[in-house]
Amino acid sequence: MRRIRLSLAQINPVVGDLNRNARKIISYINKAKKLKAELIAFPELAVTGYPPEDLLLKPKFIEDNIDTMHKIKKASKGIVTIAGFVDSRDGLLFNAASIISNCRLIDIYHKKHLPNYGVFDEYRYFQAGNRYPVYSLNGINFGVNICEDIWYKNGPANIQALSGAELIININASPYHVGKAEFRKHLVSTRALENHVTIAYVNMTGGQDELVFDGGSFILDTLGKTILKGKQFEEELITFDLEFKNAGPGRNKKSRSGNALTAKKEKAEKIKIQSADSRGRKPALNVRKPVEMLLIEEVYNALVLGTRDYVIKNGFKTVVIGMSGGVDSALVVTIAVDAVGKENVHGLFMPSAYTSKESYDDAGATARNLGIKLITVSINSVFKEYLKTLSKSFKKTGPDITEENLQARIRGNILMAFSNKFGRLVLTTGNKSEMSVGYATLYGDMAGGFAVIKDVPKTMVYDLCNWKNSKERREIIPETVISKEPSAELKPGQRDVDTLPPYTELDPILKAFIEENKSVAEMKKRGYNVKYIKQAVEMVYHSEYKRRQAPPGIKITARAFGKDRRFPITNRYRSK
Amino acid sequence: MRRIRLSLAQINPVVGDLNRNARKIISYINKAKKLKAELIAFPELAVTGYPPEDLLLKPKFIEDNIDTMHKIKKASKGIVTIAGFVDSRDGLLFNAASIISNCRLIDIYHKKHLPNYGVFDEYRYFQAGNRYPVYSLNGINFGVNICEDIWYKNGPANIQALSGAELIININASPYHVGKAEFRKHLVSTRALENHVTIAYVNMTGGQDELVFDGGSFILDTLGKTILKGKQFEEELITFDLEFKNAGPGRNKKSRSGNALTAKKEKAEKIKIQSADSRGRKPALNVRKPVEMLLIEEVYNALVLGTRDYVIKNGFKTVVIGMSGGVDSALVVTIAVDAVGKENVHGLFMPSAYTSKESYDDAGATARNLGIKLITVSINSVFKEYLKTLSKSFKKTGPDITEENLQARIRGNILMAFSNKFGRLVLTTGNKSEMSVGYATLYGDMAGGFAVIKDVPKTMVYDLCNWKNSKERREIIPETVISKEPSAELKPGQRDVDTLPPYTELDPILKAFIEENKSVAEMKKRGYNVKYIKQAVEMVYHSEYKRRQAPPGIKITARAFGKDRRFPITNRYRSK
Repeated sequence: MRRIRLSLAQINPVVGDLNRNARKIISYINKAKKLKAELIAFPELAVTGYPPEDLLLKPKFIEDNIDTMHKIKKASKGIVTIAGFVDSRDGLLFNAASIISNCRLIDIYHKKHLPNYGVFDEYRYFQAGNRYPVYSLNGINFGVNICEDIWYKNGPANIQALSGAELIININASPYHVGKAEFRKHLVSTRALENHVTIAYVNMTGGQDELVFDGGSFILDTLGKTILKGKQFEEELITFDLEFKNAGPGRNKKSRSGNALTAKKEKAEKIKIQSADSRGRKPALNVRKPVEMLLIEEVYNALVLGTRDYVIKNGFKTVVIGMSGGVDSALVVTIAVDAVGKENVHGLFMPSAYTSKESYDDAGATARNLGIKLITVSINSVFKEYLKTLSKSFKKTGPDITEENLQARIRGNILMAFSNKFGRLVLTTGNKSEMSVGYATLYGDMAGGFAVIKDVPKTMVYDLCNWKNSKERREIIPETVISKEPSAELKPGQRDVDTLPPYTELDPILKAFIEENKSVAEMKKRGYNVKYIKQAVEMVYHSEYKRRQAPPGIKITARAFGKDRRFPITNRYRSK
Repeated sequence: MRRIRLSLAQINPVVGDLNRNARKIISYINKAKKLKAELIAFPELAVTGYPPEDLLLKPKFIEDNIDTMHKIKKASKGIVTIAGFVDSRDGLLFNAASIISNCRLIDIYHKKHLPNYGVFDEYRYFQAGNRYPVYSLNGINFGVNICEDIWYKNGPANIQALSGAELIININASPYHVGKAEFRKHLVSTRALENHVTIAYVNMTGGQDELVFDGGSFILDTLGKTILKGKQFEEELITFDLEFKNAGPGRNKKSRSGNALTAKKEKAEKIKIQSADSRGRKPALNVRKPVEMLLIEEVYNALVLGTRDYVIKNGFKTVVIGMSGGVDSALVVTIAVDAVGKENVHGLFMPSAYTSKESYDDAGATARNLGIKLITVSINSVFKEYLKTLSKSFKKTGPDITEENLQARIRGNILMAFSNKFGRLVLTTGNKSEMSVGYATLYGDMAGGFAVIKDVPKTMVYDLCNWKNSKERREIIPETVISKEPSAELKPGQRDVDTLPPYTELDPILKAFIEENKSVAEMKKRGYNVKYIKQAVEMVYHSEYKRRQAPPGIKITARAFGKDRRFPITNRYRSK
């Protein structure tokens, strides 16, 4: 039996903060060394954070990132360190992994499969790699590859396995969306089984603008079964003793004969790594099974982590949120409290003449349940003064959307004034259903730095509230908030259903249209209400200009607004 | 002597408006047929408009675009039509050109070189082509390729020339930036000379969100000399009789021997096109030389076209602009008048207690010079009412940036109220220098649908004003507006230089940092003021969150904000 003690360092880097990322990486190296690990693997682009976007076009940034990798190299005494960074050869860039042993750079692996869809732009920056070496450490043969590389049947893992790799270390910066963790496990499991290899999958954790990396690193055996799984949505050093049977010669070829026909053999290359010091008695490892999360719990945790990291990594400490008494703002405040602590969350209730007594009570009850400060600032007198100022110019017109938007914009201005005066980040409260159809006011309720639930459909907003209340075993979001009819309260008796289809009908249409790119005819075939389909599609197309000016928010679905969906504003296409 | 009458249709499509684009294409086919042209070429993706972005992910859109191509095919009786569209094979997409003759689809060319940098995302959608046929029409051999294909020395044009092509038809959707036309001509001229071929370069014209396509199609002879050049920034049908000598066998190999060594010969493929009806006497062609434009004139025209198309293609007729009496708003109003007509441009002057008498006079003079309506709406009473409303919450604080931003935001709200009430698009007036360093108020002066001069550095704003005045031979932008010191007038005695480096020092630093990705050290070497470099760099990094919520505006430099520059908001990198 051959044995290797392996550490997966599921860390949360900050994009661009090379020094901080290096300190963090080195501290994890030291932790792993204390546990007598022989090998430690960090996520994809752990040195720079992911995605660095157009920072990659700055030659000085690339240079600084390479210097940082060498700093990490010097700290890798007595351990093999694998860490993602950006390599540069003759001015061409590669999404790379350094293979460092005992302070020496043994090799650099270049990512082969570069994602250029969804939120990814890797062809914008990187060249594809074409070397798939197998390393040998203390008699164990392993290959290293990066993220998307593991998605391809005949990709790097297959070539490495055919060259004798028993273990594949796949380093990732794989962003979260609902169901992604299950999808990843299924896919990587197939790869393990096909190639009869053990796979160690290490993922990043943390929030970066629109993205949340959900961690959940794992190790699968050669049958694709999970040996070990890391925590989701938090940093962790996962250390484990992997055991490999002493196989006779020819074993590899035999067990992988099925794949041998399809793979390119010309790339086989073997590199022996000088044995890291693995002598001495090793401390026993305390491996616990992580608690499996419900999907709704995953979403909630993604929202908390995404919010926390956006606030903190951008140098803020406190946030301010407009509380209307409605369910969206109640959920956002709840998430914010879990993200940055109740003492750092400030609520603003900004009533007008159309605000109901119930809204006031509900906003107050939510604030009390969470233990946060709630300040009331009426918009009435400012609204009246605007109307007076505009009366001459508008004298021949009746009230319309203008006056509704004006109220929302006064609230936006007041929130921004609190932000400017006290240095608090404004969190907006619009959900995905509203963002999709443009049921929101630019510079009004859309004003703020971060849109927490921008990618959460309204029906899921309710699910999250109910889940949170039941998890806490008490009412956080008051039942009255959850059960009342949604209204923007911008004119007397206003209800969302006067303008929009009911959310239970709207949300499936939006999912089909936005996430699945279904046509009107296909949606009709599914039996969705034809009137609602047409209404929704027209509203989605028409409101592109609003979304272009929306703050970023956390991606939790298969297709979020932002980098994930790039749509022309000037667009006259209307699908049938 | 062999002869072909060739038409280049430099058209302005609308993204997604397949029916309108088809009607336009067919009307140009009919015009060309009246002129007895044997061949007509349309721009890249003429059927869909460029760039269709994520519309391309909708299978129904692809299907509709192919149907549209077949509609065009049916209208191509007695003429060869080359038009850009999206081809689909087994679910894979290609940026393609249809080669249609006499209502029959003869062949489809697939673009080989897919740009995936700057504003381009072609790897997100398309697969690369790998066939480079040569067509023969009435004894003349020609190759077709698409845009970026012509940028590569050993690219499709070289392979086609080696297969006997005498003429290369290169179809484009090439967006404008200052100096691009000259760059294109130089590059394509090199390609003509290398391959000893005539090149017909047809470009799109028109505005599409951030991009302006500047037309300026041209034909070069085998020595790379310009035979003919189309107008810039407008539609045109360019028709010309090209003549080719009757060469003996072996001519091709001899004259292109230099390249023969490097090119791949295996792709040679010849397709004969049934002769289009070229009998009958042809009408004489009236070819005039287009007026060459100064670079500053090009920029001005790009801004006018970009503004006009954004307004019109999005269904607006009129615009409203906040006029401060400053040079930026004066320029934007002037551009708007040229774009949509003075009767459709509405100015709003919104003075506060800090607005000078000079500002009032200057805004008024500009409006009079242009013959537009100017309405005055004071923000004083609303501002006072905000301060009263906020006084309790802000009681322990002194005035700061909060109150300045509040004034800008009241103006933003009033502009949006005019927009909502009367259906006018708000044009914002911020320049690139301000956008770069974040010297602008989110939801204040940044509020609006389209940011006309967002990519125009402040120093170029002055150049454009002076050019416009001298072109019109009268004062459009008053001399007092051009010569006075810039101020935001948000507090007493405020001047831009109190917060920013002087623009003549700032603009070269911004160009080096943003367009050229120079490091601090490199900028120091160029002799820029060290204090100003540090100040500018920090301000650019820090204001990323503002730009993310800015309206789109017209790209006129080598690197504009928007799709052209993709930067993380959460980013702690500070280059040295």
